[in-house]
Amino acid sequence: MPYIEAKLSVNLDENQKNELQSRLTDLVSVSFSKPKAYIMACIEDGKSLYMAERKLEEGAYISVSLLGSASKSACQNLTADICKILSGYGIDGSNVYVTYHPVDLWGWNGSMF
Amino acid sequence: MPYIEAKLSVNLDENQKNELQSRLTDLVSVSFSKPKAYIMACIEDGKSLYMAERKLEEGAYISVSLLGSASKSACQNLTADICKILSGYGIDGSNVYVTYHPVDLWGWNGSMF
Amino acid sequence: MPYIEAKLSVNLDENQKNELQSRLTDLVSVSFSKPKAYIMACIEDGKSLYMAERKLEEGAYISVSLLGSASKSACQNLTADICKILSGYGIDGSNVYVTYHPVDLWGWNGSMF
Repeated sequence: MPYIEAKLSVNLDENQKNELQSRLTDLVSVSFSKPKAYIMACIEDGKSLYMAERKLEEGAYISVSLLGSASKSACQNLTADICKILSGYGIDGSNVYVTYHPVDLWGWNGSMF
Repeated sequence: MPYIEAKLSVNLDENQKNELQSRLTDLVSVSFSKPKAYIMACIEDGKSLYMAERKLEEGAYISVSLLGSASKSACQNLTADICKILSGYGIDGSNVYVTYHPVDLWGWNGSMF
Repeated sequence: MPYIEAKLSVNLDENQKNELQSRLTDLVSVSFSKPKAYIMACIEDGKSLYMAERKLEEGAYISVSLLGSASKSACQNLTADICKILSGYGIDGSNVYVTYHPVDLWGWNGSMF
């Protein structure tokens, strides 16, 4: 049940979105030892992102929500890996934020985890 | 002051969006004993959602933010009801996540609740 | 590292988006004593927002995420200022929610803050 939301200023075609979510899903699965079968991702491209009051041509805001808690070291490694992947889309790490959100109450398929 | 954000992979017309928000608002109002007058909803359709590395043709990510805390049993009932409603839009519960977010600091109309 | 996400029902042109993010960045910087260089904003316009089961022609949902905690008095002042600014875009404060989200785990540029 991690949920990954990626807001990107760049525009991606269907294949690129698919590839990006697959890579993010892989990383989150390994970092937090969660089966891929339960990882949801939402890829939002063409967003109006700004940093330091300037429009980011290439920037990203990624939020990762997890049931329960996350260790800082796991987040550290994941952040490094996410920034590496995003650089392949022309997005420099200095224009990337990745936030981690522990969630206690998580519903799926009519029930709670 | 609950706030409901619904990200759907399907596309809805104006009437369907209106109907969906009305049903979600009803459910959240009853589940958490909050007056409808203070429930905000944002319906986002046509999103690129993925689960288990495959594109969801019919999927949804719903987040419900509330001032203060929420009981697990209220969330349980609400999740069941939300999944029932979404199935009417062709979205199976196995492709739905509903997360609940207690919020302590909530502003409205120039002040804090 | 604050991150401001603004969901607006109105449509804004590129200049208006730029202006709005600049004003929000200014306010957040002052309210929480954070350097502007580290404030990211995402401006999403034309959203389907509802309150009390009616479509908002002019409404807004603003969320502000911060590393660490926020005082209620700082949030109070910021909410008042944000509502003032939004009224300049025809958005009445009664149709505005501003939520504040302390975040403990925040990554940037390959590392954690």
